[in-house]
Amino acid sequence: MSIKVYLAGPEVFLANAREILDAKAELARQAGFVPLSPGDLEIPPAPTKKGLGLSISEIDEQMMLEADAIIANLTPFRGIAADVGTAYELGFMCGRGKHAFAYTNVAADHGARIHTYYEGAVVADAEGRHRGPDGLSVEDFEMIDNLMLHGGVERRDGAVVVHDAAGDALYTDLTGFREVLAIAAAKLL
Amino acid sequence: MSIKVYLAGPEVFLANAREILDAKAELARQAGFVPLSPGDLEIPPAPTKKGLGLSISEIDEQMMLEADAIIANLTPFRGIAADVGTAYELGFMCGRGKHAFAYTNVAADHGARIHTYYEGAVVADAEGRHRGPDGLSVEDFEMIDNLMLHGGVERRDGAVVVHDAAGDALYTDLTGFREVLAIAAAKLL
Repeated sequence: MSIKVYLAGPEVFLANAREILDAKAELARQAGFVPLSPGDLEIPPAPTKKGLGLSISEIDEQMMLEADAIIANLTPFRGIAADVGTAYELGFMCGRGKHAFAYTNVAADHGARIHTYYEGAVVADAEGRHRGPDGLSVEDFEMIDNLMLHGGVERRDGAVVVHDAAGDALYTDLTGFREVLAIAAAKLL
Repeated sequence: MSIKVYLAGPEVFLANAREILDAKAELARQAGFVPLSPGDLEIPPAPTKKGLGLSISEIDEQMMLEADAIIANLTPFRGIAADVGTAYELGFMCGRGKHAFAYTNVAADHGARIHTYYEGAVVADAEGRHRGPDGLSVEDFEMIDNLMLHGGVERRDGAVVVHDAAGDALYTDLTGFREVLAIAAAKLL
């Protein structure tokens, strides 16, 4: 039986997106999976920008419905948190009861990144809860991102892999992807 | 028949989280819904930070499984995109086939916010695709956030409401929430 894995992540936004998506798909095939990537399918032309966006949303959801598992690249994207499109897709697949795996190419965890965001200006409130100068609470659950993402993977049969990639290879270094792929293959194949 | 709506959003991180969550729940009740909010239930103590995070993840997912609909607050959080936990929850509910609604308190759309992030340094590549100085493509689908989020809501029976809140009331102004709540009530009740 062939197991289909949906490869979610912000690499779709790269200038060399096709190259990286193809490399990930090839590694997934070598591991024994049938890969499905956003961007694999031709998007029908649409009369409006929003119409095109809706078509891509529909096609990506169809691919996810077809897939048995997701490997989500949760590397922070344009800020301190994962790409929200990838977060949606991870939630979608967990909601469908599919197998979920994740990796990140940033070693600093969620709590550490929030501390950096606030330049260390984090203080405990009257209840001992840590907060930034804007009053927002600083989560620290020793997780790679918001607890719904990391928890969603870890509470299922998934695994979360952390790799410390070079700053100029955040979205192209496939070390963490290879590692989580091997774990997924050992569990599912 | 009572319709349960899950109220997702980054207000759980506010110093006055309980007050805002209670105000949203009360508005939802007045509209005819049974509200479910993250933070409503007592979280059992856990021996580790991660254990506590996993417990919260489990309880929030249980509430979503119980809910018939989600209203997601997609106001940008600590950066230019929605809270990733809320994005996960929106995906989870769309994956479950539940009704989905969303609102944001920032009028500038996804494309506009990315342009601001790049301080306007966006240029077209050889294929005419707009990219920032880091090479990442600049999405512009006339949507409030990544197309999976906005598209996931709009492709279902949902609605996306945009309200231009004051900067110091981004997470407390409930105008957009009231508006989307009224739309949800008209559709579902």
